[in-house]
Amino acid sequence: MSIDLMTFREAISRPDDTVAEAAATRQLQLTKPPGSLGRLESLGNWLASVQGECPPTPLRRARVVVFAGDHGVARSGVSAYPPEVTAQMVRNFLAGGAAVNALARVNDATVRVVDMAVDDDLAGVPADVTRYKVRRSSGDISVGPALTTDEAEQAFQAGVSIANEEIDSGADILLTGDMGIGNTTPAAALIALLTGNDAAAVTGRGTGVDDQAWMRKAAAVRDAMRLSRPHLGEPLGLLAWCGGADFAAMTGMLLQASARRTPVLLDGLVSGACALVAHRAAFRAPLWWQAGHQSVEPAHRLALRKLQLEPIVDYGLRLGEGTGALVALSVLRAAQSALADMATFDSAGVSRQEGGVEPSGQALLPDVG
Amino acid sequence: MSIDLMTFREAISRPDDTVAEAAATRQLQLTKPPGSLGRLESLGNWLASVQGECPPTPLRRARVVVFAGDHGVARSGVSAYPPEVTAQMVRNFLAGGAAVNALARVNDATVRVVDMAVDDDLAGVPADVTRYKVRRSSGDISVGPALTTDEAEQAFQAGVSIANEEIDSGADILLTGDMGIGNTTPAAALIALLTGNDAAAVTGRGTGVDDQAWMRKAAAVRDAMRLSRPHLGEPLGLLAWCGGADFAAMTGMLLQASARRTPVLLDGLVSGACALVAHRAAFRAPLWWQAGHQSVEPAHRLALRKLQLEPIVDYGLRLGEGTGALVALSVLRAAQSALADMATFDSAGVSRQEGGVEPSGQALLPDVG
Repeated sequence: MSIDLMTFREAISRPDDTVAEAAATRQLQLTKPPGSLGRLESLGNWLASVQGECPPTPLRRARVVVFAGDHGVARSGVSAYPPEVTAQMVRNFLAGGAAVNALARVNDATVRVVDMAVDDDLAGVPADVTRYKVRRSSGDISVGPALTTDEAEQAFQAGVSIANEEIDSGADILLTGDMGIGNTTPAAALIALLTGNDAAAVTGRGTGVDDQAWMRKAAAVRDAMRLSRPHLGEPLGLLAWCGGADFAAMTGMLLQASARRTPVLLDGLVSGACALVAHRAAFRAPLWWQAGHQSVEPAHRLALRKLQLEPIVDYGLRLGEGTGALVALSVLRAAQSALADMATFDSAGVSRQEGGVEPSGQALLPDVG
Repeated sequence: MSIDLMTFREAISRPDDTVAEAAATRQLQLTKPPGSLGRLESLGNWLASVQGECPPTPLRRARVVVFAGDHGVARSGVSAYPPEVTAQMVRNFLAGGAAVNALARVNDATVRVVDMAVDDDLAGVPADVTRYKVRRSSGDISVGPALTTDEAEQAFQAGVSIANEEIDSGADILLTGDMGIGNTTPAAALIALLTGNDAAAVTGRGTGVDDQAWMRKAAAVRDAMRLSRPHLGEPLGLLAWCGGADFAAMTGMLLQASARRTPVLLDGLVSGACALVAHRAAFRAPLWWQAGHQSVEPAHRLALRKLQLEPIVDYGLRLGEGTGALVALSVLRAAQSALADMATFDSAGVSRQEGGVEPSGQALLPDVG
C-alpha cells in the first residue's frame, strides 16, 4: 500500500492560462480605469483560471476542514495551554462556539472537523468526526517520529479521501484549518527544514508562551530538525518524523484538491507548513492556492515567501482554525463579483480612457512550469 | 442661514469608552488565546463602542452614499477620462453595473447616488437623485472658487440632510463613495493644505494620467492651494474654494453621522480629503470612522496618517465609488461576529491559559479628548 507523493507532480497541472488571459482582457472592458481594482483584479483572474471559466462563478459551497490532533511535544511545556484543550475545542467546534464557527456563519461557509489524532476518545461525538482517526496523539517529535510510516500513509490517504468527499459533495473552494495544542512546534520545524532556516528564526509564541516556554520550544524545534533532516527528500517521511497525523492529512487534502483543480484558501502557520511539504512533492500545487492571511508567527512569513504567495489580509491573527482563510474568503468573493457582474463600457455606454497610462504587462500566473 | 461648522465640535462626543472596555473584557472570555484575533478584536471593540452596546449587533443596513459631481478643473486636462463620464457613470450606478454595485451586492449593502453638481441634466433619472443638486459642475479651483459661500452651505446642508434621512431609515453604518472626473485634483489640494505638504507630494495619477497630464494636474493643485490658503481657518470656505458641491455634501454627512453616533467606513482619496476637513471642524469626529482601505494615491496615505486611521485593506485600489469601503465592510462584520457569537471558556467548558503572556495593555480608543 506504499504511496509515492511524487505521483502528484504529474497529476497536478497548471490552472488554465487561456482563461486567465481572457479574464485579464475582460477586466479592461469593465466600467473602471484599467487596473483600478488592484489586487481584486488579480484575484478575480486567478479564480477564473482555477475554475477554468471566465467570468468566474460565485463560490457557493465553501468548506473549512479543521484537522485536529494532539502532539506529544506539548507535554514538554511548549504551549500556553494544556493538551486537553484540543478535545475541548473539538467539542466547541461541533457546538458552533469557536471563532471558526462565528466567521464561517458570517462568511457563508461551513465547517467540517476531522479528528486525526486527538488524545481523547471523544465519546459521544458523531462517528464521522473520528472516522479517520489514526491514533491518540502523534508522538513527540523532539525525541522520535510522530508517526510510523504506515500511520503517515493512512493519515495522508485520509486527507485525499476528505478532498474527494468534499469535492464530490459540491465544494467549490476548500479552506484549511487546524486545531492542536502544540502544533506550532512541528509546523515551525517543518518550515525551518524546508526553507533553510534555523530553530531560533522560526520559533514563535504560538498561542502565547512566555520566555521560558519559548526556549523549551526552540530546543524542541532544533531536536526535531536534527532527527528529521535525513527525511528531507521524502515528503511522507518528513510528515512521519516532523509532522503528525493532522499534518499528513492536510497535506493529502492540499495535493488532491490541486489534482482535482479545486482552489484552496490557506490559513496560517500549520497550513503554511503542510503547503510547503505539498509543494515539495508537486511544484505546481501552489498555483491552486491563495494565502488567506499573514500570521504573526515568524515562520509563516518564510513559508509564504518560499511558496510565492502573497497573503490576502494581515491582521495580526494567531489563532488558526481557518479563521484567517475565512476573512480572506469575502475578499475573493468581492473579486469574483467585480469580474463577473460589472457592466462593460459598451453595454453601459460609458466613454473610454483618452490616452492614459496603459496597464503594465504582467505575468498572470507565476511561471513555474 | 449662515452655518458654523465649528458647532459640530461640541455636538460630537467620544464613542462609549465604558462599552469599549466591556468589549475588551469580553474578548478575554471568548474561547481563543488573548489577543489572537488581532485587528478583528480591536475592530470589534470599536464597533461596540460606537454602537454603545456590548456585544455589538450585526450590521443590517449598510448604505453606500456616492456623491457625484463634476469639476471645472477637469477641462484643463488633469484626468484620463472626458468629463461626460461622470454622468454616464451615474446612469451606470442606477443600472447596477458599476464596481460599487457589484461589491455592494456581494457584501449585503445598498447604494444611494446623489447628484450634487454633475454637468448634465440627467434627464429621466429619478428625482431623488438630483434633488440636492447645487449647480452644473463646480468651478475650476485653479482659477477661482469652486462654489459661492451660499452654494457651499447648501451642499453641506444637503449632506447633513442625507445623513439624517439614512439614519432615520435605519442605516446602522454609512460608507462614503465618490464619482467625478477630476475630483482627485481638489482632493489632493485639500490634503496638501491640511497636512502641510506641497503639490508634488500629493499629486497622483488619479484614474491613470500620463506624465504630461500629471504635470498639468500638479500645477492645478499648486494654483488651487495658493488661492485657497487664506481660507484654511474656515472649513466651509475651504470647501467653497478648494472642494466642490460633492465635497461639501460628503463633509456634511461625515459630521452629522458622527454627531448622531453612527459609524462610517471611509473609502479612498476623496473621502480622506473630506474627512480631514471634517476633522478640522470637529477633532473627535474620526473616532466614529474607520478607513476602509489604503489607496495608491500618495495623498491618501498622508491624510490617513493625520487622521490616525489605519486602513483595513490595502489592495492597490484607485477607483473610488466606495469600493474600498465595501471590501472592508466584510472584515468589520467578521469582527462583530467573533465578538458577539463566540462561546466563552466557561460556557464551552474549555480550559484557560496556564501562565502565558498577558495581553499588553493598550488604549482602546485614541486619546483625543
